[in-house]
Amino acid sequence: MHAGIIARQADARVTWCYDLDLGRAAAAAEAVGARASSDIDAILGAEDVDAVLIASPTNTHVDLILRSAEAGRPILCEKPIDVDLSRVEECREALRGRDVPIQLGFNRRFDPSHGAVRKAVADGEIGALELLVITSRDPGPPPPRPILEACGGLFRDTSIHDFDMARFVLGEEIVEVYAMAANRVDPVFAELDDVDTAMIVMRSESGALVHINNSRRTTYGYDQRVEAFGATGMVRSNNHRPSEVSRHGAAATAARDPLLHFFIERYADAYEAEIRDFIDMLGSGRAPSVTFEDGRRALMLSEAALRSHRENRPVTLSYEGA
Amino acid sequence: MHAGIIARQADARVTWCYDLDLGRAAAAAEAVGARASSDIDAILGAEDVDAVLIASPTNTHVDLILRSAEAGRPILCEKPIDVDLSRVEECREALRGRDVPIQLGFNRRFDPSHGAVRKAVADGEIGALELLVITSRDPGPPPPRPILEACGGLFRDTSIHDFDMARFVLGEEIVEVYAMAANRVDPVFAELDDVDTAMIVMRSESGALVHINNSRRTTYGYDQRVEAFGATGMVRSNNHRPSEVSRHGAAATAARDPLLHFFIERYADAYEAEIRDFIDMLGSGRAPSVTFEDGRRALMLSEAALRSHRENRPVTLSYEGA
Amino acid sequence: MHAGIIARQADARVTWCYDLDLGRAAAAAEAVGARASSDIDAILGAEDVDAVLIASPTNTHVDLILRSAEAGRPILCEKPIDVDLSRVEECREALRGRDVPIQLGFNRRFDPSHGAVRKAVADGEIGALELLVITSRDPGPPPPRPILEACGGLFRDTSIHDFDMARFVLGEEIVEVYAMAANRVDPVFAELDDVDTAMIVMRSESGALVHINNSRRTTYGYDQRVEAFGATGMVRSNNHRPSEVSRHGAAATAARDPLLHFFIERYADAYEAEIRDFIDMLGSGRAPSVTFEDGRRALMLSEAALRSHRENRPVTLSYEGA
Amino acid sequence: MHAGIIARQADARVTWCYDLDLGRAAAAAEAVGARASSDIDAILGAEDVDAVLIASPTNTHVDLILRSAEAGRPILCEKPIDVDLSRVEECREALRGRDVPIQLGFNRRFDPSHGAVRKAVADGEIGALELLVITSRDPGPPPPRPILEACGGLFRDTSIHDFDMARFVLGEEIVEVYAMAANRVDPVFAELDDVDTAMIVMRSESGALVHINNSRRTTYGYDQRVEAFGATGMVRSNNHRPSEVSRHGAAATAARDPLLHFFIERYADAYEAEIRDFIDMLGSGRAPSVTFEDGRRALMLSEAALRSHRENRPVTLSYEGA
Repeated sequence: MHAGIIARQADARVTWCYDLDLGRAAAAAEAVGARASSDIDAILGAEDVDAVLIASPTNTHVDLILRSAEAGRPILCEKPIDVDLSRVEECREALRGRDVPIQLGFNRRFDPSHGAVRKAVADGEIGALELLVITSRDPGPPPPRPILEACGGLFRDTSIHDFDMARFVLGEEIVEVYAMAANRVDPVFAELDDVDTAMIVMRSESGALVHINNSRRTTYGYDQRVEAFGATGMVRSNNHRPSEVSRHGAAATAARDPLLHFFIERYADAYEAEIRDFIDMLGSGRAPSVTFEDGRRALMLSEAALRSHRENRPVTLSYEGA
Repeated sequence: MHAGIIARQADARVTWCYDLDLGRAAAAAEAVGARASSDIDAILGAEDVDAVLIASPTNTHVDLILRSAEAGRPILCEKPIDVDLSRVEECREALRGRDVPIQLGFNRRFDPSHGAVRKAVADGEIGALELLVITSRDPGPPPPRPILEACGGLFRDTSIHDFDMARFVLGEEIVEVYAMAANRVDPVFAELDDVDTAMIVMRSESGALVHINNSRRTTYGYDQRVEAFGATGMVRSNNHRPSEVSRHGAAATAARDPLLHFFIERYADAYEAEIRDFIDMLGSGRAPSVTFEDGRRALMLSEAALRSHRENRPVTLSYEGA
Repeated sequence: MHAGIIARQADARVTWCYDLDLGRAAAAAEAVGARASSDIDAILGAEDVDAVLIASPTNTHVDLILRSAEAGRPILCEKPIDVDLSRVEECREALRGRDVPIQLGFNRRFDPSHGAVRKAVADGEIGALELLVITSRDPGPPPPRPILEACGGLFRDTSIHDFDMARFVLGEEIVEVYAMAANRVDPVFAELDDVDTAMIVMRSESGALVHINNSRRTTYGYDQRVEAFGATGMVRSNNHRPSEVSRHGAAATAARDPLLHFFIERYADAYEAEIRDFIDMLGSGRAPSVTFEDGRRALMLSEAALRSHRENRPVTLSYEGA
Repeated sequence: MHAGIIARQADARVTWCYDLDLGRAAAAAEAVGARASSDIDAILGAEDVDAVLIASPTNTHVDLILRSAEAGRPILCEKPIDVDLSRVEECREALRGRDVPIQLGFNRRFDPSHGAVRKAVADGEIGALELLVITSRDPGPPPPRPILEACGGLFRDTSIHDFDMARFVLGEEIVEVYAMAANRVDPVFAELDDVDTAMIVMRSESGALVHINNSRRTTYGYDQRVEAFGATGMVRSNNHRPSEVSRHGAAATAARDPLLHFFIERYADAYEAEIRDFIDMLGSGRAPSVTFEDGRRALMLSEAALRSHRENRPVTLSYEGA
C-alpha cells in the first residue's frame, strides 16, 4: 500500500524495494517500477535513495532505523518502534546525537476528522479539555496466530494508536493509567496470555480525564470515534461509511451502511496524507510531525496499561529519559 | 382526543358533549365528566358553555359553525370547513358582520419543528425564501371506503394541510398551482375518481417556488418534512420517532425506529398546543392564530390543485372575496 | 411535578400533601385539589390514603419510608434512600419481614430510549454484552451550596443514576469499580471535598466492562447516552432535543437544537411512566419494577466509587446482606 | 482533472493533449508526460492513440465526436453533446452505422451513493417506484458571463444532470414534464433570458412521479440528494462532507461541516470511476455504460423543460428517432 501511495505522488518515486525474501522484494518493486534487493546496505548506499520507509515486521524496525540513520537517510517507520520498550530505549540511545529526521507512522493523526478534533481543542474552541473518550474497536476476526504472537498484545498493538491519539488531542502528557481488561472475543487471546477487550482511564498533566475502550471484534465495521468534551462545548469525530445512503422501511429508518471495514479502508486518505507530510518535510528543514519520542511515549503508555491490568492498580508515568 | 386534552388543562373543562347519537355523546361525556346532549341548541344556550370545539363529520361543520356563531360562542373547528368551496363561501357570507372568533384546526402549525421553520423564515434567518419543499405521506392503508367517499379526495383531505403549511411558512399567498397525480397505492382511489399519489408545484406572490409531494401509503410511518431554502441558508423540519435509539449490526448501522405512526402520534403535542392556544385566545382580545380565511384559502388551493390535475394545466388564483 | 403527574391519571388522585412547612404543603395541595397537613401520622392513618410518594429532602427518606411501611402503605420513594449507607442498612433491617411494596425512583429506567437498550440486551439482540458506555453530564451551573452540601457528592447524587442504569442494562451485578475524578468545573466542589468530573470503569459478574463519565456542567444541555456493545452488534440510546429542526448555512450544516435542558425536560415522560408503573403495580400483586434493594446496591456502587477515588485503587464488591 | 485521473491508472496513460491553443495543450501534456498538438487529425491518426476523451468547450463536442468516430477511436465525451438539439440529431444521423463506442460523461451515475439508490430500485428493494425527488443546487456564485452565455441555460447546463439521474434511477423513460422557474439569485440570469431557480415535475412511462429542484446558489455547499420512494420503502442518497466531525455548544448541537464545495470535490471519486469504467469497457466488447442516446434524451428533457417554462404548460415527450 505504501509503495502505491508513493508512486502516485508527482514529486516522489519508489526507487528500491527491500525484503529479506528477494522474490517478494522483486514483486513489490515491479508493481511500482522500482529495483529490488535483499541487501539493505546496498540500498542505503545507493545514490537514488533519499529517504527510507520502513513497513517491515515490527521486530526488524530498530535494526532498520539504526542502519538508515547511520546512512543519514530520513526515515518514516510504521508503528510501533518495537514491542519491547528496552529495545526502544537502546535505539533511542544509539540515535542520540544523530540528526536524521525520523517520523513515526501514527496514521490516524492525519485523518481529517480526528485532525479537526485536535485542531478544535488546540484552538480553544471547546475551552479547557475535561473529558476525552476514544472508542476504537477492530472488526476482527483475530489475525493469524503468528501475527498475534508477535504483535505484543492488545495494548502494544491496538491501544497504542489510541494512546497516541490521546496525546495528539490533549497536546500534553498522560501521567496516570488504569486498565481493566477481559477475554470476551476469542479463546486464542487467553491462550497467548493476551486480552481482547479493554477499558482504560487515564489522567493528563493538567487534570483532564481520558477513556479508551477497545475490542478485537465488531460486526458492523471499524469503530473509530474520538469525543473531546471541554468547558464550553464538545467536538466529535464520528465513523466513516462507504456511502451516504440511508434506507427506510417497516423494520427501520435512516439505516446506514456498515462502517468502512478496517484500517486500510478507513484510513486510506490518512495513509496518503501521512506519506505526503513526510515527503513535504524532506529538505524543508522542519521537524517530523510525529517523532520517535511520540512512538516511545505511546509505547510507555502501552506498558503502563499492561502493568496496570496485570497488577490491577493504577500506574503513574514520568517521561524522563533513561 | 380533543376532549381529553381539554380535560387536562387547569383552566378549562369540557361541560357538554354533542352527538346526533346520544349514546355516543354520553360515552364521550362520561370519560371527561361532562354532560351529553343531542340537542345542539340546548348546549349552545347553556350557561356553562364558553366556547365550542367542532370535531364532527366534515359535512356538519358549516351548520355547527353558523349556529355557534349565532349563539356568540367562539369556535375551534377541525379542518376543512367543508369539502365544497361554494358552501364555504356561503358560510363566509353568513358570518359577515359577526364578531365571533373562529379558529381553524390546522394542527401542524403548532408543531414545534414546523413552527421553528416558519420562525426561521419570518426572522430572516435564511434570507429571502426561494424554495419550499413539503413532504407529506400518510402511512395508510386507505381509510374505510365511506370515509374516503366523504373526504373530498386527496387534495381536499390531505394536501390541504400542506397548502396551509406552505402559506404558514411563506407568510404570503400562493398565486399559481400545477398538480401531477397518479394512482399507485390502491384501486379504491381510482374507483372513487380520486388519486393517491401527487406532486404539486406552486409559485408565491413574491416568486418563491413550492413543492409538495403526497402519498396515501408508506411502510415506515408518517412522513412529515418541511424544507425551506433561502438566499443565505436552509432550515428543515425532519421526522419524529418514538425513541432516540440507534442499532448497529452486520446489515446496517445507525438504524432508527420507524417514524411515529400517524397524526395522532406525530402531532399529539401539536393538538395540545392548538387547544392551549385557543383557550389562551378566549377573552384575550387577540385574533385567532388560524382563521376562517386560512381555512378558505387552503381549500381554494385544494380546488386549484384538483382543477390543475383534471385539466392538466397550471391554474392561477386570486383571493378577492365573493 | 410528581403531584401534577398523579393528578393527570384517570385512576389516581392526590388526596394529601405533606410538608413540615404547612404553608408549602397547602400550596402544593391546592394545585391538585388535595388536603394539606404537617402531621405525617394523620395522613398515613387517613382512609383516603392508598399509597405514599416520597419526594422530600433525602435525609427524611428513611424515616418516611419506615413510618409509611408501618402504616402498611405502598411507597414510591425518590432516590437515593439516604446518602449514608449505614442508615440504608438499618432501614433495610427494620423493613425485614414487612410485606409493603417499595419502589425506588430511578426514573431513567422508564425512559423509552434507555428502555429499548435494556430490552435489546435482554432479548439477546446484540449477543453477549461486552462493553457498556454511559455518558451522563449535567448542564450545570452547580446547585445552591446547601443542596450540594446535603447531596452526598457527585458519586452519591449523580453517578448513582448511572450505576443503576448499568445494573438495569447489564441484568447482573457489578463486582469491581475503579473511579478517577477531578475538579474542573467549579471551586465549590473542591471546597466541599467533592469532585465535579469523573470517569469510572467497572466489571460485571460475567465479565462485561462498563464505563461511566460524568460532569457537573455542559454548555449544550443534558447529555444522557447509553451505548451497549455486544458480540453481534451495538445499540445506543442517544440524546433528546426539543425539536427535529436542522439548520444549514455557511458555518455549519445539519445543526440541531441544544439538548433538552435537564432532567425535568429530558425525563418528563419517564417520570410519568414511573408513576404510572407504580399505580399499575398497586393491588396487582406483582413486585415493584425498581426495588429497595436496587436503591441499596446503587448506593453501594456510589460508596465503592468514592472509596476507589479516595484510595486510588480498584474496589471489589459483594452484596451479601449485613 | 481528467488527464490526472488517467495518469493515475495502472493500465492507461495520456499520450496526447489537444487544444486549439498549442500552449495550453503543451502545459496540460507536460503535467502528465504526454505530447501536445493543436492538429486533431494528427492526433487521431497517431499509433499511440487508443481512445479519445473530449472535455473541450461544448460547442466543439459534435465536431470532435464525428472526427474521432471517423478515425474509429472510442470516445468518452463530457456532457452535453451540444446545447442545440438539432445539432445532436445531425450528429446522431452522421454516426448511424458507425460501430464506435461513445460514452457520455454523466459522472453522477458513478457516485457510490446515487448508484446505491439506483441499485436498490432496480433490485426491487423498495417495490414499485412511486415518487422520486432530486435536489440539486449549485454553490454559486454564477460562473463568468461568457460561460453562462454558452452553457445553454439552467435546464441544459445544470438540470440536464438531474434529468439523466432521473432516467438512471427510474430505469425507464419520462413522458411528461412541467417546469416552473424563477429569477431569485442574480440579475445576470434574467439579462441572459435565463433562470436561476426551478422546480420541475415529471411523469414516467409507468406512472411514477419525479420532482427536481434547482438553484444556482447555496451558502452551505453543493446540495446533491436523491430520494426514491416506493411501495415498500424509501432509499436516499444524502450529502457528502469533508469530514465526519460534529460540534456541540450553547448555540447548536451535532453541527456538521458545510457540504463539499462543488462537483470537483463532491464527484472526485465519481469522475475516477467514470474513467475507470470507460477504460474497462475498451476492448471488452461490452457497450458503454452511458450512451450517446442517454445524452440525447437528457437534452430532450432539457428542451421540454425549457418549453414548459416558456409556454407555462406541461409538455409531453416521445423518443422516436428523427
